[in-house]
Order: sequence, then C-alpha cells, then structure tokens
Amino acid sequence: MALISPSRRLRRTPFSEGVEAAGVSAYTVYNRMLLPTVFRSVEEDYHHLKAAVQIWDVACERQVELRGPDAGRLMQMLTPRDLRGMLPGQCYYVPIVDETGGMLNDPVAVKLSEDRWWISIADSDLLMWVKGIANGYRLDVLVDEPDISPLAIQGPKADDLMAAVFGDSVRDIRFFRFGHFDFQGRDMVIARSGYSKQGGFEIYVEGADIGMPLWNTLMEAGKPMDVRAGCPNGIERIEAGLLSYGNDMTDDNTPHECGLGRFCNTATAIGCIGRDALMRVAKDGPVKQIRAIVIDGRPPACDRAWPIMAGTKCVGHVTSANWSPDFNTGVGIGMVRMTHWDDGTNVVVETQSGPMAAVVKDRFWL
Amino acid sequence: MALISPSRRLRRTPFSEGVEAAGVSAYTVYNRMLLPTVFRSVEEDYHHLKAAVQIWDVACERQVELRGPDAGRLMQMLTPRDLRGMLPGQCYYVPIVDETGGMLNDPVAVKLSEDRWWISIADSDLLMWVKGIANGYRLDVLVDEPDISPLAIQGPKADDLMAAVFGDSVRDIRFFRFGHFDFQGRDMVIARSGYSKQGGFEIYVEGADIGMPLWNTLMEAGKPMDVRAGCPNGIERIEAGLLSYGNDMTDDNTPHECGLGRFCNTATAIGCIGRDALMRVAKDGPVKQIRAIVIDGRPPACDRAWPIMAGTKCVGHVTSANWSPDFNTGVGIGMVRMTHWDDGTNVVVETQSGPMAAVVKDRFWL
Repeated sequence: MALISPSRRLRRTPFSEGVEAAGVSAYTVYNRMLLPTVFRSVEEDYHHLKAAVQIWDVACERQVELRGPDAGRLMQMLTPRDLRGMLPGQCYYVPIVDETGGMLNDPVAVKLSEDRWWISIADSDLLMWVKGIANGYRLDVLVDEPDISPLAIQGPKADDLMAAVFGDSVRDIRFFRFGHFDFQGRDMVIARSGYSKQGGFEIYVEGADIGMPLWNTLMEAGKPMDVRAGCPNGIERIEAGLLSYGNDMTDDNTPHECGLGRFCNTATAIGCIGRDALMRVAKDGPVKQIRAIVIDGRPPACDRAWPIMAGTKCVGHVTSANWSPDFNTGVGIGMVRMTHWDDGTNVVVETQSGPMAAVVKDRFWL
Repeated sequence: MALISPSRRLRRTPFSEGVEAAGVSAYTVYNRMLLPTVFRSVEEDYHHLKAAVQIWDVACERQVELRGPDAGRLMQMLTPRDLRGMLPGQCYYVPIVDETGGMLNDPVAVKLSEDRWWISIADSDLLMWVKGIANGYRLDVLVDEPDISPLAIQGPKADDLMAAVFGDSVRDIRFFRFGHFDFQGRDMVIARSGYSKQGGFEIYVEGADIGMPLWNTLMEAGKPMDVRAGCPNGIERIEAGLLSYGNDMTDDNTPHECGLGRFCNTATAIGCIGRDALMRVAKDGPVKQIRAIVIDGRPPACDRAWPIMAGTKCVGHVTSANWSPDFNTGVGIGMVRMTHWDDGTNVVVETQSGPMAAVVKDRFWL
C-alpha cells in the first residue's frame, strides 16, 4: 500500500485529533474528506466491532440541507421512493436517480420538518445535482452543506454507551427514527442507524467545536465497555450485504440492479425525475443484479472490478471482497447477469492475482 | 503519513500499471481517482521536472462532455467568461460559478466544434451540476463522462519527447491550442497546456486500452532525455501560483477573490447563471484575495487552512505551503483580507506546529 499525501483538499474532520490519538493506520477519501479504514488491523477491528462498541468518525457523510417551502417537493423529485407517508422524526434510505434512472447516490434522508430535510450522503457530490435541479426548476428552497459531522456509535454495547452519556431514553429510539438530545447545552439529532449490522446510533454533530468534547466524553464513558475508535469495517459490511456507492454501484446502475427495487414506488412517486425510465425497468426487471459471492480462498485487495467468468464468457463483476474469519471463506459483492444469478451457480472470479473459484449466493451472511 | 486503503471506489487509471512500475510512493485522491503525488521524493521530483521531462498520469482530470445543439448555450450558462470569440481548436481556462457566484470548479474548456465541448475538470463532481442544469432548463444536449484520460508531458524537454513520438508538427501547437494527432491508428487530441510552468502538453487519451501502449512508447522514446514518471509537484505549482481547487479555493469563493477577475466578462457573458451576483462583486471588488505568502522557514505539511494573524486579528488563511529549494524559503498560497494584502505586509501564520513569520507578496515566484 502507498501513502496518502496530506492536503487541505482532503478535509480533516472535527474528530481527526481523536482519530490520530487512537492510532489510525490507514484512510480512504470519501466526499473529499478523510475516512479512517484501519486502526489495529482490519481483522482485529472486525472482531472488536462484533464484541464491544466503537466510535466512528463518519463526518464524511456530509449533509445536503434543503430548507424552504419547496423542500419536500424537491426531495420527491430526487428519489423514486414515495415520501408521502414519511413523518418528521423518520429516516428513509433513498436511492437518488438521474433522468435515466442511473443512481447518483444512496443516502439516508432525514425529515426534520415539512420544510427542512437533511440528505446524509454517500460518496458523490450530490450537492451539485440538487443545486442544479433547484436552480433549473426555479424552486423556492435553500440548498447547502451545513456544518454537521456525523459520529457513529456501533457494536453490541452501543446502547449502554449512549445511555451513559445521553440518558436511558436514548434506548427508546426505534430503528431509522431519531430524537433530539442535549449535550453540554447543545441540541444533537440522534438516529438509530449506521453502516454495520451490529446495531447502534448516528449522532448528527452540529458545529465543529463540539466534536472533540463529545468524542472525549464518549471515550471516557465507554471505558467499562472496552470502547475503541473504529470505522466502517471492510469485512463486516460485506458479510451484512451493505452496499458501497462507488464500489458496488455507480451512476451506470439502476436501483433495481442494486437490489433496491423495494425502495422504488414508481407508480406513486409523482414528480421523481427518473420515474419514466424506472417505470420501464420496473416492468421488464433488471438483466443483472447484486449478489453475494462466496470466494474460495483469501482474495487480494479488491482495488478494481473483477470479471466474473462462466467459461470464456464474462457474466458480471465482483466489486468488493475480503476474507471473513467468522465464516472462514472469502466474501464478496458483485453484479451478476440473470443467466448466472441463481443461488449456487459456480463461477470463476478473475482477480489481479489470478482466477479464484466462486459461487453466487442469493443471501448475504449476516 | 498514513496509508491509503485500496478500493474500487478510488478508481485506478489506464496508466496505473506504468505508475506502479515506476515506483510511486504516495497518492492523493482527485475526482475519486488515484493521482500520484510522489515518486522519489517531492524535492527530487521537483528538480527533475525543472531539468528534464516527465510523464504524468492525470487521468483524474475527468472530462464532462457536452454534445448537441444547446452545448454552446449550456457552456456559457456555466461560466462568466465570454465565450463568443472562442474558436474550435481553442482551450479556455473557465471559472464555473453557481447562482451566488461561488466557484464550483476551475476547469479548462476544450471546444471541439460548435456543438461538442469537453470540460477538463478540477476536483469536484461538476458533472452533477451540469446534468442538473441541463435537465432543469430542458436543454437539448447530452452530458456525460466519456472514456478519456489525460496524460501530461511536462518539463523543458517536453517538445523534444513529443516530437519523437508524434512528429515535429506537434511543436507548432500554440499555448492553449490543440491539434489532432495519430498514435497507432487512433486519433489523439493534444493541447499545449498543463499544471506546471515548465512547459508541455496534455494528451486526451480516448479509450483505456491505448493507455499503456502510449505510456510505454513515451517512456522508451524519452530515454535520451532522462524521462521519468512524475506528477503535479507541490513545490513548483506554488512557486508558479497555480491554484488548486479544494485547497486554495472552494465554493465559498468568487473568481474575483481567487484573482480570476480577468476571466469574468460579466458585462457580456449573457446567460451565465452567476452573472447577477458577479456584477455586484465586479462593481465593489472583493474584500479578500489570493496572494503569495513568503514563509520564514520550512513549513509542516499544510493539511488544513492556517490562520494568518496580524497581532490578535485573523486576516486570512494559508491553504497551500511547501519549502522551495530554488528560492531557499517557505512558499505559500493564501487568501488575505484587503487590510493586509499589500505587498510586503508582515504577518504570522499559525500552523499546527506553531506560529511562523511570513510576508504577503503580490507576485508569485515563477
């Protein structure tokens, strides 16, 4: 692995000081911001995530804020998911599509009130698309990136740690709901969500200045629970089938190809910009789709899309892979053509280190 | 420095194989793509760039292609620079602004014909803004990212190397003009441009498959000229006053603040989306502006904006800095308020390693 060159353009976060003190050893760049990827080792971080509780600097989940009378209308233009039943206090996972139905991002939308939304984005400058649409359609809405930096608390002891800092009522937040909590006189939106299957919360930290006081308080309160600094784990998220925008899907893909058809209500999502294109996809179905891929052996670093071969024919690509200690196998995520996407289909994955035997699965591990 | 974690999301380029074989030691991420930053050392790379010729993998300068009857109209909507006199075969440096005059990118526009343009972008997903505007205004234009990967040839011996591969007529390309040249039966757009002051070319390589054959041919032909793999150099570009989007300017800044007022023809750039806002800026002038900053000593890595202090008052920020061996001083780029932007003003720069004495200059070094 090569080094990463520091520059202001790869933005630090309000928690960077804590991340460095905890001994981060590798980063990725996500929304032009530093996202830690390894502390002790990917495997050691993985075992700890599944056993205890971790604090994750996910400030790179930048927010796009919509504010004004047309905020709700704009939000529905962006996604094929029907938002009419969504209440303030709810979070929705929403595919965002362009006019061809290609995915531009797969964020979580947070509805604060009828005229105020946050879109907690994956890795693409969705702000630019939203601003362009708001401008072009002359909508009465303000769109910008506020000073909000999410901090995730993930792992089986997440409830205990959060209750120690925010009080027992934090335990009552339901999945993909949020509430308002106080920390040192500051209002914090706290949602039960996060990029792992181990359970936990995301705190929307408003104001960079309160970042390290909150980090330090959580670290101190978590000592009895063996809290550590952590980060989204490259093994656990594949086991759980959590997709990564830019890895497992790009703007070439429709939500249906990504297995996100259940979030597309093309019949009722009136106003969605990509609706016409997705009506067609919904009718015909996709010709390729995301699948779990069992890889026979320890795969190399998945730094490029690996062709999935059936004989001499390319029938898809693996886009994320790792070795799973708990399942004692290579685990991967890939897009597979319908001719070979049935559970149990034997294929070969062409990695940069050579071919590996693999099997297509229709369920993920967690 | 920490390591960079490989993943498909941090895209490899058609030249990555050559870059790795040449012993790249560090990267940055630019437009979600790997951009080499160091081969031997920043200082050794710097001396070589100024003496010989280097081949740079700048595939991360992704292209936004506009094609169709409204391509020219859309291009003028994006920028305050008057494009009416621009001919096919020309390249223009164009600030791109939103409706408030904030800079979204500072690319080079390449006019292939009246109805076909490439925008060779700096580090932001400008594609999203352009697609949003095209959709919102219902323009008759196709907007996408084609399979084009720029390769730069930079250094005093660039003309000799290019002539050895493409023939002597490549020497006749004037600054910011381009021509079409053949390589192994493939058409290549070659412009006299690049992100250094050492002179050179950028080849718009169309089709990933021809990337390594071209790289290898250039490496072979350049042996008598001591050719090496290189990359934009963090010292030389500051000496030359070449700004970096995301480092030295963001969407908070107007072109005028960035010293790019000469590229804003607000009186005549009819149709530019940010024109109204910039008319106001052009009338009043900016209250802060980019300046060269002489730093007394060897600065640490500039991984965040450093406050520029006059006594206890913050009067700006340094956003890029390095040690210059040729000028035997610390060199920096910063945004300074008008009260302190005059040539020769003494200030103090607050780095993460402590304060450093500095002087504001109105001219860069190269």
